[in-house]
Amino acid sequence: MNSVITLTTDFGTRDNYVGVMKGVILALAPKARLVDLTHEIEPHATAEAAFCLLTAFSHFPPGAVHLAVVDPGVGASRAVCAAHAHGQFFIGPDNGLFTPILDRDPAARIRRVRHDPPASRTFHGRDVMAPAAARLALGEPFEALGPVLENPVRLAWPTPEQKGRTTRGQVIHADRFGNLVTNIEPGHAPWDFFELALAGRSLTGPAPAYAAAPKGMPLALWASHGFLEIAVNQGSAQAFFKAGPGQEVLVCAP
Amino acid sequence: MNSVITLTTDFGTRDNYVGVMKGVILALAPKARLVDLTHEIEPHATAEAAFCLLTAFSHFPPGAVHLAVVDPGVGASRAVCAAHAHGQFFIGPDNGLFTPILDRDPAARIRRVRHDPPASRTFHGRDVMAPAAARLALGEPFEALGPVLENPVRLAWPTPEQKGRTTRGQVIHADRFGNLVTNIEPGHAPWDFFELALAGRSLTGPAPAYAAAPKGMPLALWASHGFLEIAVNQGSAQAFFKAGPGQEVLVCAP
Amino acid sequence: MNSVITLTTDFGTRDNYVGVMKGVILALAPKARLVDLTHEIEPHATAEAAFCLLTAFSHFPPGAVHLAVVDPGVGASRAVCAAHAHGQFFIGPDNGLFTPILDRDPAARIRRVRHDPPASRTFHGRDVMAPAAARLALGEPFEALGPVLENPVRLAWPTPEQKGRTTRGQVIHADRFGNLVTNIEPGHAPWDFFELALAGRSLTGPAPAYAAAPKGMPLALWASHGFLEIAVNQGSAQAFFKAGPGQEVLVCAP
Repeated sequence: MNSVITLTTDFGTRDNYVGVMKGVILALAPKARLVDLTHEIEPHATAEAAFCLLTAFSHFPPGAVHLAVVDPGVGASRAVCAAHAHGQFFIGPDNGLFTPILDRDPAARIRRVRHDPPASRTFHGRDVMAPAAARLALGEPFEALGPVLENPVRLAWPTPEQKGRTTRGQVIHADRFGNLVTNIEPGHAPWDFFELALAGRSLTGPAPAYAAAPKGMPLALWASHGFLEIAVNQGSAQAFFKAGPGQEVLVCAP
Repeated sequence: MNSVITLTTDFGTRDNYVGVMKGVILALAPKARLVDLTHEIEPHATAEAAFCLLTAFSHFPPGAVHLAVVDPGVGASRAVCAAHAHGQFFIGPDNGLFTPILDRDPAARIRRVRHDPPASRTFHGRDVMAPAAARLALGEPFEALGPVLENPVRLAWPTPEQKGRTTRGQVIHADRFGNLVTNIEPGHAPWDFFELALAGRSLTGPAPAYAAAPKGMPLALWASHGFLEIAVNQGSAQAFFKAGPGQEVLVCAP
Repeated sequence: MNSVITLTTDFGTRDNYVGVMKGVILALAPKARLVDLTHEIEPHATAEAAFCLLTAFSHFPPGAVHLAVVDPGVGASRAVCAAHAHGQFFIGPDNGLFTPILDRDPAARIRRVRHDPPASRTFHGRDVMAPAAARLALGEPFEALGPVLENPVRLAWPTPEQKGRTTRGQVIHADRFGNLVTNIEPGHAPWDFFELALAGRSLTGPAPAYAAAPKGMPLALWASHGFLEIAVNQGSAQAFFKAGPGQEVLVCAP
C-alpha cells in the first residue's frame, strides 16, 4: 500500500518530535507517503488545528490517514481516537480536533484506540498514534484499532448565527498573508451580493478574486477553502483592519 | 513514474496551503516524489523565487518538475505557464519566475496551461498548477498542456554592468547565515584575483573557502551556487556590512 | 532499496540548501525516503545537533542513514566521516556530532569519506555527504566509503557528576514548548523519588505525566526521549524558571 499519511501538530520544526513520529511510521509502513499539513499550530490550539484539517482533508486521496497531535491533555486520561469519515481516516487525541469534519459526514464512525496504560516516558503521538496511523496505512481494518468510542469530546466550534437577512460570524484564522478567514460558509449567506461589516468598516461583496480590488485595498470573497475571507490585494487584512481570530463579522443581504 | 516534483512558494508553513497542493498531486500521481525548495519566499517576491529556482534546479534529476507559486497577480488574468528547459519542467504563473532559467537554455520552450476560466474559489496553485505538475510527472507530453505561450512576461533580473576592468553588480539574496549573494558570475569578473567594494569597505578575493578568513572576518568567494558571495567566517556578512539585497557591489581587476 | 535518509542541519528553511541536497540524493537513489529531523539547529551548534540525533535515531528502521550538516569548519581541512552504529549509518563532518551515539555502541565503526580535495565552490553537504548517504541507501558497503578514520574529533558532551546522593547536571535543550531537557538519564539518578533544584526553586519528582501538575505549575519527569525534563503543565518552564541551556540542575535522593 502506498497510502498517504498527513501530519498536523503544534510541535514546531525546531525539535525532532515530528521526525521521530515519521521514523516510527516508516519503520512499520515503509511505503507510506508522508505529507506535513503544518506543525505550527499555536501550542494547544485545538480549534486552529480543527480548521486546518477541515479545509485540507478533501484534497487527499481516498484512504488517506490524517494524524493530528494537538493535545493540551497529553498524558492525562483522555482517550486516543480513530475516526472514519468521508472515506478517510483520522487519528488523534479525543479532544474534538475532528468535530467539524465528523459533523459533515452522517456516516462517520469513531473508535477508541486500544493501547497500554500510559507510562511515564510515553509520548502518545509517537507511541500510540503514529503506530495506529501506520496500521491503517497498511490496510488493517478500522474496527481492529479498538472499541467504539462513546461520547467523544466535542469541540466548541463557533457556528454563525443567522437572523433574517443578517448573519453574525467571526474570524477564525489569520493566514500567513494576513487574510482573515471567517466561519461563514455559503449556506450562511446565500446571497448573490452582500454588505459586510468588520472592525468598524464596511465592504460590499463578494469579490471574484484578490486582484479585483486595487492594490492595498480590502475585499471579501468566497475563498478557495470554502469560507468567506476578508483580504487586501497584495497586502494584509489583519494589519488593515487591526483584527484577528475572534473578531465579529456581520454579513447582511443588501 | 517516480518523478520528482519540487515546490517553491511564498505560502509559509503555518497554513495548510502547501499540504493541500501535495494532496492534489498525490491524488493524481501517487508515486511522485515531493521536495520542498522553500515556502519562505517573501510574499510576492518573484525575483527571490527566481534566484531560488535558478540555483537549485540543476541538482535535480532529468525530468524533474519544478512547481513555483509566487504570484502577486493571483486570480487576475495572467496565464499559467509551463516551460521545458535543461531537460526539466517548470510550472507557475506567467510572471517571469523562470526568466533567468529559460534565458540560459536557447532551446527552452514555454506553453500556456489550458484551464477553465478562473472562478471565485479558484486557488490556481491547487486547481491548475498542481494538476499540471502531476500530469508531467506521470509522463504526459509537454505539448498536451496547452498552446505555445507568446510573449511570456519577463522578470527584470538585474544584470551586472562590466566596464573595462570594473564590474558593478548588486546583492540579490541574504541567506540564513547572513551570507550576501551577489548577481555576479565568473563571466562578469574573469580574473584570478580581484578587489571588491561593498558598503564602504573593501576586500580582496576570491577566498578559497569560508574558513580561509579568521573567525569573524569577511571574505568574498565564488560560492557553491555559482555566484560571488560575501561572507564572514562563522558570522553574518549581513550584520558585518549592514547590507542586504539591492546594495551595490563593485569588483575590479587588481 | 527503500532506505530512509534523515537530514539534520543548521541551514534553516528559507534558502534552497536542504532542497538541493535532496535533489542530489534523489538523483542517485531515486527510492530513498527522506525525513527531516530539523533544519533549525542554531548555526554551528554542534552539541544541539548531537542531542537531536541522539534522541531520534533509535526510532528509525535498521539501515537508516542519518545525514547531519552542522559544520563550523566548513571548507576547512576537517574530514567527512561515516559511522556505523546501532545497525544504522551516520554521515557528517568529523566534528563530534555523533560522539554520544557512538559512545553508546561499543561496536561502532567510523570511516573517513574519500572525496576530491575541496575546491572553491564545494558545498560538502551537497557534493560529498549527500552522495555518500545516497550510496549507503543504495546498499553500497560501508567499507567502500573510505579508510578507517583514526582519532575522530570528540564533542565535549556534558556528563552529569554524581557524588553520593546528589547528581549535578545541566539543561541541554529548551524545546518549542519551553520544556527544559537536562543531560540526566535514569542511571544518573536511580531513585524512585528525588528532590530537584533549578534556578533557586525546588521540585519533587518524578511526575508521571505533564498533566500531573495543575495547569501552569512545574514538574520534573523522565520524558519520552529518555532524559530528565522540567516542564510546566500547558506552559513554558523556560519562562517559569527563566532558565535555558547551560543552567545547572541538582537532583538529590530524598
